[in-house]
Amino acid sequence: MENAVAEFAQLPGIGRKTALRLVLHLLRQEESEVVSFGEAIIQLKKEVKHCKICHNISDSETCNICASPNRIETVICVVESIRDVLSIENTHQYNGRYHVLGGLISPMDGVGPGNLEVESLLERVGAGDVVEVILALSTNMEGDTTNFYLYKKLKSFEVKITTIARGVAIGGELEYTDELTLGRSIVNRLNYSDTLNQ
Amino acid sequence: MENAVAEFAQLPGIGRKTALRLVLHLLRQEESEVVSFGEAIIQLKKEVKHCKICHNISDSETCNICASPNRIETVICVVESIRDVLSIENTHQYNGRYHVLGGLISPMDGVGPGNLEVESLLERVGAGDVVEVILALSTNMEGDTTNFYLYKKLKSFEVKITTIARGVAIGGELEYTDELTLGRSIVNRLNYSDTLNQ
Repeated sequence: MENAVAEFAQLPGIGRKTALRLVLHLLRQEESEVVSFGEAIIQLKKEVKHCKICHNISDSETCNICASPNRIETVICVVESIRDVLSIENTHQYNGRYHVLGGLISPMDGVGPGNLEVESLLERVGAGDVVEVILALSTNMEGDTTNFYLYKKLKSFEVKITTIARGVAIGGELEYTDELTLGRSIVNRLNYSDTLNQ
Repeated sequence: MENAVAEFAQLPGIGRKTALRLVLHLLRQEESEVVSFGEAIIQLKKEVKHCKICHNISDSETCNICASPNRIETVICVVESIRDVLSIENTHQYNGRYHVLGGLISPMDGVGPGNLEVESLLERVGAGDVVEVILALSTNMEGDTTNFYLYKKLKSFEVKITTIARGVAIGGELEYTDELTLGRSIVNRLNYSDTLNQ
């Protein structure tokens, strides 16, 4: 039991007291349930793979999104991590493919382009068919640096390079929006009639 | 003193205890300072006027923005309140004129177009010179209703009707952005090169 508690306590946000509570909970369950929980954890690392095309998590060599014939092949949305793929999928507004960089360029943390999936992105774009690359990275210093690096690398290809819109959140009030974002939302204003069916 | 405490206690967010604290503070000040404070309050309502063109607050008949020869006359940004004018001015990204509606259409609260400065907006646009009307209202139900009402009214004029961009905040992460806003930021994506100098 001490062993199990120590294992749980390794997880982020779980201390020894919570770990003990979780272990005591498991001890009250049926044996079969506890075994299947343990097996799920073992399989997790063994069987979850990364898609060889977009580096998203996947059960097989190619992820569901890259394998789907219903997704537009010619548009690639570049994101930092798998969590961003999930966020964008939840919007149901995007029907293209992804490319997961696995991080952002950050000289301070010693992360350069070589540590990210940049080469494989350039290969995908260089292979031809791609019409548009959407840069959907965070707008912090690392995100801006990475955006600009990718832009410079991608510029030589015949491909449209776009970025997600910045602006006031839907339901957000002007008064509580920071000045930079509000300023950007005015500069990049849209035709009202184009937004009517969104 | 009881009188002064009662007056302070009328203000929003100030209870009797705080009011008493404020009055005791004033009693400790020089008489001239307290008199000038009182006079400022009296002048506030007497001398602050509303601009007859855009309905922003003003010291004179016409506000500084409407009177300025450096502001573009042909673009009008429609906002709900004076606070929104201040928010947009703080961004230093807008160089046109404003039109303060004084509220939003809200059938639930009995606010119709007749209670707002809609007629005077239509007159300004109808007078000719205006090239673009930017709808910069909140995206709640009242804001959407008002946007659509104004759009229908303005459509017959030869004027471009735009709206501020909605999207991920600058510095905001995709993961913490609500699905509607993230979805909109992808649908309304921009050319990356257009955003480079913003």
